[in-house]
Amino acid sequence: MKNIIDLVNKKPWVGWLLFLVTAFSIFVVGMLASNIFERRMEAQMVYKPINPISDHETRNEKWGLNFPRQFERYRATRESDTQTYAGGSKKIDELERDPRLVILWAGYGFSKAYYQGRGHYNAIDDMRNIYRTNHEKSPGTCWTCKSPDVPRVMEEIGVAEFYASKWADLGHEIVNPIGCYDCHDTKTMALKITRPALIEAYERQGKNIEDATHQEMRSLVCAQCHVEYYFKGKGKYLTFPWDKGTSVEAMEEYYDEAEFKDWTHAISRAPMLKAQHPGYEVWKTGTHAARGVSCADCHMPYRTEGGAKFTDHKIQSPLNNISNSCLVCHRESEETLRSSVENKQKKIKTLRIQAEENIVRAHFEAKAAWDAGATEEEMTNILKLIRHAQWRWDFASASHGGSFHSSLETARILATSIQKAQDARLELVKVLAKHGVHDTVEIPDISTKAKAQAVIGLDMEKIKAHKDKFLKDIAPEWDKKAAERHDQWDAQSAE
Amino acid sequence: MKNIIDLVNKKPWVGWLLFLVTAFSIFVVGMLASNIFERRMEAQMVYKPINPISDHETRNEKWGLNFPRQFERYRATRESDTQTYAGGSKKIDELERDPRLVILWAGYGFSKAYYQGRGHYNAIDDMRNIYRTNHEKSPGTCWTCKSPDVPRVMEEIGVAEFYASKWADLGHEIVNPIGCYDCHDTKTMALKITRPALIEAYERQGKNIEDATHQEMRSLVCAQCHVEYYFKGKGKYLTFPWDKGTSVEAMEEYYDEAEFKDWTHAISRAPMLKAQHPGYEVWKTGTHAARGVSCADCHMPYRTEGGAKFTDHKIQSPLNNISNSCLVCHRESEETLRSSVENKQKKIKTLRIQAEENIVRAHFEAKAAWDAGATEEEMTNILKLIRHAQWRWDFASASHGGSFHSSLETARILATSIQKAQDARLELVKVLAKHGVHDTVEIPDISTKAKAQAVIGLDMEKIKAHKDKFLKDIAPEWDKKAAERHDQWDAQSAE
Repeated sequence: MKNIIDLVNKKPWVGWLLFLVTAFSIFVVGMLASNIFERRMEAQMVYKPINPISDHETRNEKWGLNFPRQFERYRATRESDTQTYAGGSKKIDELERDPRLVILWAGYGFSKAYYQGRGHYNAIDDMRNIYRTNHEKSPGTCWTCKSPDVPRVMEEIGVAEFYASKWADLGHEIVNPIGCYDCHDTKTMALKITRPALIEAYERQGKNIEDATHQEMRSLVCAQCHVEYYFKGKGKYLTFPWDKGTSVEAMEEYYDEAEFKDWTHAISRAPMLKAQHPGYEVWKTGTHAARGVSCADCHMPYRTEGGAKFTDHKIQSPLNNISNSCLVCHRESEETLRSSVENKQKKIKTLRIQAEENIVRAHFEAKAAWDAGATEEEMTNILKLIRHAQWRWDFASASHGGSFHSSLETARILATSIQKAQDARLELVKVLAKHGVHDTVEIPDISTKAKAQAVIGLDMEKIKAHKDKFLKDIAPEWDKKAAERHDQWDAQSAE
Repeated sequence: MKNIIDLVNKKPWVGWLLFLVTAFSIFVVGMLASNIFERRMEAQMVYKPINPISDHETRNEKWGLNFPRQFERYRATRESDTQTYAGGSKKIDELERDPRLVILWAGYGFSKAYYQGRGHYNAIDDMRNIYRTNHEKSPGTCWTCKSPDVPRVMEEIGVAEFYASKWADLGHEIVNPIGCYDCHDTKTMALKITRPALIEAYERQGKNIEDATHQEMRSLVCAQCHVEYYFKGKGKYLTFPWDKGTSVEAMEEYYDEAEFKDWTHAISRAPMLKAQHPGYEVWKTGTHAARGVSCADCHMPYRTEGGAKFTDHKIQSPLNNISNSCLVCHRESEETLRSSVENKQKKIKTLRIQAEENIVRAHFEAKAAWDAGATEEEMTNILKLIRHAQWRWDFASASHGGSFHSSLETARILATSIQKAQDARLELVKVLAKHGVHDTVEIPDISTKAKAQAVIGLDMEKIKAHKDKFLKDIAPEWDKKAAERHDQWDAQSAE
């Protein structure tokens, strides 16, 4: 210290230098401190609503005024044509990719059109556009998972009444695509179950969904829709078939006991089940669920913008976002992880295609048996085997992500599907022989979607014309009425 | 400091107290230092051979003089009756547990006796005792994996000559159970490949096994034996069928192209393949292999005794030793990990049993078809389907640990086995119908091992008598000759 004082006494410019360096350092520290405070403020602002959200507010963009980051990311589920994995907006035609599906769903709406799921933002558009919905026939229940307007209208007219309505009668009410109000409380932003079917399924199992932890809720809000369900009874009451458990066998037993069928197969006359998308149930059997990893952890990982860390509401395949999802826990390269997942998908796909091949054949062989004069008695067990084989194939295939979420369980289910389809075919050979048919049953040309649809007698021109008429004449009316309602809401809140 | 000096001046006993505390502290530090040095010495001693090991030394207990800890743990593979999982010495009779196996292996030695594998120490005893070996018929190749005497004798008489010998002619040479010399260099203790088949398989693929890293060697020394192999040609030359790859399909194709069969099935007359134990090949397709975890990492984890950390040579199922194996990487409770593995095993088991059921039926239905007058032409493809179905079932079942090492791959393989067996049965129904058989083919009572063995016409009394005679008259002679050789070695090294 003394040396420095001596030096300054000798050379005064050294003193000035020291003064300047010190002053500059203090300035920099001040800047940094300010920056930290600013970022804290920024982080807090994200979670502080400026515009109160009214109890019926189902428009995502209105919530977005308070939560711009979450909203913008949610809105990004609309467009992502460059995306390779599910959750993008590329409209991948699954029937074109695999025309066997047309045969498997003969007599059921899915044979008309089936696309890979797109992002949540597209829910209403896709629902209106798809040939599976019919403005003269579809029930209100079809809307259940498509919009935050659903719980609003359910509250207004009653749950059972909602389901029992005509799809077209609710069309002007259900216009906002899946969004904020579906999973969040308007006041606290806490995660919230808004769909009765999940709450009721819990109740029937003697559980209260309000006991769920926050981490469980980060999966349960998804389980409102990404599950197996059916339309029960004449009132088309949306119900989860979970009363005996959530395994493929437990639900199969449930449906069998209830003597439920989604439709009668147009080729084999089997009483069929359509698996919905039991993603939640299959995920529950896998490693990630066992380790306490929720849906949101991977499909909505945290994201940082500036100083704000928030849940990424661009719900998508983690394969589109490995660095933010997988790499939080896994210390592997993106390529290693991706190829590991794709390797699993490839293996499962070979089993899926094999199961489809068997079941397609079984349907045509059953038809040949009927044509040859087989009796109801001879066919009952065979049709049940076909029903079970296809249910299991569909369960494994429609549980999107199953080959990743729980690859062993998915392979196991497909193996039992293969077994049952082949059992059916074994019986069919015997029945056919009994009725004088010894030759191998020929499968018609189903090498393209159009050919397969022709085989099952679908008049696609007629279906298209019917849909076009709806889109031209009716859908715009719905939008008009909805706009009036929204204007009214705005007028009310301005008062 | 000044205060303390003042205090000591005032109260001299404080000075003595300080002196004593200081002296004691220094003493303790000295003790600790000594302890550390001692432990270092102990740790080093473990790896410092005291007794040089001669180049032909195949007696594990002689190596054990230098490496008592490793040897004692190796020796513990002898006895572990309380063990639940593979690697214990409980002799679990697999044919008794699942008599379908007797049918599946009809016409082949495995139908006589098949036990769950026991620890390495029991290799020679088990080899001599089992009904599958026959002192009048078995070839020398059967010894290949059972003893460190094998590479020694191979060096003396030649590899091809070893394989082409009679099993009984080598019996007096092959007496020490699997041990040190099988995997270690006598001088450097480095891991070493002593079996030609693995080296040759690498060479045919254009690879040099000497390029393997130490971590790879920690799996490759196991892959000398825990793999798929066959006895090629008249010289019974031990060969790995890896030339087209190591997947179940690649090896199947290899065998088909070579028109190789292990035996002709006694019931169906199908040209069969016996899968050995393709544990290494299946492990390679799983997560642990992908993450660079070697066989030794889990089956021979590090163990600490006193100051010595060493590789636990009690090779066993990690499920017997979760805390030292799994918990090194996994932060889960033992119970969680155990039930996760057992859950996988359970799922795979259902598929395995299903595959067996199908294949057993296929064998009997094929026999019925032959009996009804089916032609070679009608049966060729059917028998090939049976061959492939059973090969795949056997591959999945015999790749011990497959449901853990690579559960998806194991399930996939079993699913293809199910498919192929059912395809065979579909064809069989047609052939049977063509020859006037319309009834379901009855399966005889195979509910116990004894009943199943009676069905395939095994004279177990005769087999037992033959083995008893060998154990009474011949085996003791072998031991006598071996003892003389060992005495001679000792005399030589004493010179």
